Amino acid sequence: MFTLLHQDKSSKARLGKLVTGHGDIETPCFMPVGTQGTVKTLSGQELNDSGAQIILSNAYHLFLRPGIEVIKKAGGLHKFISWPKPILTDSGGYQVFSLALLRKVSDEGVEFQSHIDGMKHLLTPEAVIEIQKALGSDIMMPLDECVHYPCAKDEAEIAIERTIAWAKRSLSVVSGSCQLLFGIVQGATYEDLRKACTEQLTQMQFAGFAIGGVSVGEPSNLRYNIVHFVNALLPQDKPRYLMGVGLPEDIIEAVGLGVDMFDCVVPTRYGRNGTAFTHAGKLTVRNAPYIEDFTPLDKECSCYTCNNFNRAYLRHLFNTDEILGLRLVSLHNIHFYLELMQKIREAISQDRFVEFKRDFLRNWQGTVPVGDCPL
Amino acid sequence: MFTLLHQDKSSKARLGKLVTGHGDIETPCFMPVGTQGTVKTLSGQELNDSGAQIILSNAYHLFLRPGIEVIKKAGGLHKFISWPKPILTDSGGYQVFSLALLRKVSDEGVEFQSHIDGMKHLLTPEAVIEIQKALGSDIMMPLDECVHYPCAKDEAEIAIERTIAWAKRSLSVVSGSCQLLFGIVQGATYEDLRKACTEQLTQMQFAGFAIGGVSVGEPSNLRYNIVHFVNALLPQDKPRYLMGVGLPEDIIEAVGLGVDMFDCVVPTRYGRNGTAFTHAGKLTVRNAPYIEDFTPLDKECSCYTCNNFNRAYLRHLFNTDEILGLRLVSLHNIHFYLELMQKIREAISQDRFVEFKRDFLRNWQGTVPVGDCPL
Repeated sequence: MFTLLHQDKSSKARLGKLVTGHGDIETPCFMPVGTQGTVKTLSGQELNDSGAQIILSNAYHLFLRPGIEVIKKAGGLHKFISWPKPILTDSGGYQVFSLALLRKVSDEGVEFQSHIDGMKHLLTPEAVIEIQKALGSDIMMPLDECVHYPCAKDEAEIAIERTIAWAKRSLSVVSGSCQLLFGIVQGATYEDLRKACTEQLTQMQFAGFAIGGVSVGEPSNLRYNIVHFVNALLPQDKPRYLMGVGLPEDIIEAVGLGVDMFDCVVPTRYGRNGTAFTHAGKLTVRNAPYIEDFTPLDKECSCYTCNNFNRAYLRHLFNTDEILGLRLVSLHNIHFYLELMQKIREAISQDRFVEFKRDFLRNWQGTVPVGDCPL
Repeated sequence: MFTLLHQDKSSKARLGKLVTGHGDIETPCFMPVGTQGTVKTLSGQELNDSGAQIILSNAYHLFLRPGIEVIKKAGGLHKFISWPKPILTDSGGYQVFSLALLRKVSDEGVEFQSHIDGMKHLLTPEAVIEIQKALGSDIMMPLDECVHYPCAKDEAEIAIERTIAWAKRSLSVVSGSCQLLFGIVQGATYEDLRKACTEQLTQMQFAGFAIGGVSVGEPSNLRYNIVHFVNALLPQDKPRYLMGVGLPEDIIEAVGLGVDMFDCVVPTRYGRNGTAFTHAGKLTVRNAPYIEDFTPLDKECSCYTCNNFNRAYLRHLFNTDEILGLRLVSLHNIHFYLELMQKIREAISQDRFVEFKRDFLRNWQGTVPVGDCPL
């Protein structure tokens, strides 16, 4: 399913291809997040035009609304949301632990109350796989126990034991279908726990491995340390997915440590707040200096937003609470992320990832200049 | 500027062409409303793909935010919002009377406090034209005094006198440019006042005439009566614009009385509330019968929404407060309105407007059936 195409000469960055039931994915890749079956504010056509190869959705949210039966009757998630390319679904493990009310974790699974209507539900590892089978996800994630930072070691230890047991049960209900199941490495910031978890999971037949329990509040040096540490233990011939990461600089750092797949709400969440990513750094369009700045968000960008609209107009849209503003900056940010991944892949293929990273970060540290603003 | 191309044999419906500085407009036409320089939730590309020939914006709103100087420096409204086709700007007369705080009307103009920040402003008829000249509007509207329904006759009489005086002053500051200025007929629901206002305005050199002061709360029979009455007094060789109207059945009725141009917030406002227009009537996608309805909003529609998405998914988007829902139903509604106008023009050109109206209204009276819903 996964082919390692090229290994960068001066770093651990990898170029690969992941084959799924709905198409191939070139890695390293970024997966725009469509939690509830829509990447916020954007249409499938816009995602496709931006170069999205795969999107992420969430089994927990879809289970609660509209319910799995509806999606099953629609012919699966791809048909329901009209997205013909690959979809990865998160199991909802993280959401059960962060959103749900009154949860009760046992070896059997997680009992919780919906954060929407208070209804009680029990999710077992087996049920979570059945849900994702019904959704028709190309990549499924098992139920895991996600801990926050900081987390006491004994608590983290119980969580990895449960995560490993649940991983085994998840694998046992996967049919020999074209739906891939990844294992999720937990273990908080403890190297020995991460090692134990990785060693046990890599003995099972997962199609890929995710590093979970990161981006939960830990300092970035601890995060990079864990990513570096776990990557060294993961097999070369399977894709590696760093869950919920991150900012452009985080992604570039993690690619250099050998990560292949990413997802993060940042481009769309920042987009809805009026913060755009540009090659020079972040730009908050609502700010006063852009009142009469008639240049695009990023002169180097070829997205619909930058081809047609200037900062002054985008600022006006945000100031007047117009939805088009949220759309246009979200679209630009998704385009920025997907183009960044494209550039990363090109750099790896030419063995110049380290130079690319250095150049990117040099520009990135700067502040965003006001274009032709006469102010 | 306006050519009457054809007069329907069995009604007063007219087919025409209006030439503007940014392109020709086939009439009868509908102008999507972009009050603040954006048709709510939609992109210019989507409007263009839907067949929009012209959009409406509002001088009052743009004067307050982002301010005329910004738009002037951007090179005019078309460039600022990236819409190369015709734009009609409303003067803001209606908004001053409906939105602004503490207004003081005198023969000079209207003094008011901004509904946004409380700042005091004075708008004179001359200033309103200067604003629209700076915006570069293809069709400008003069400042008028708009009264609500019901309105005492003496009050309505003062309002038309002022409207007529202001119309004359507006015309005096128009340069011989390619920006067209329309006169606005006021007079509430009083035939003699409407007649007096129409007669005075038609003696001036306006490029077209608008019927204002309708859709302000009056019963529809009174509205149709006024539209019928005023149209009979308006010259054949100038376009007629019925301001702020309306629902599909209102538009069809008014076309039959000789109206050429329409604008209304209904398709986008209803779209954001989850109400779709279909050939069979209105459909509220949030409603329970659509939970498992996997048919498009309107099987006869060829818009992006109907080509790609079903009612169950749209219902899910509204239930989960996803912006894509607002976008997709707004897009469908604008497409529905613009396609309706296209069908109306075809029917007039073939002298079968009366039959078209009868058939449309027959379907329209029905309720919207649930598609292949198994419920």
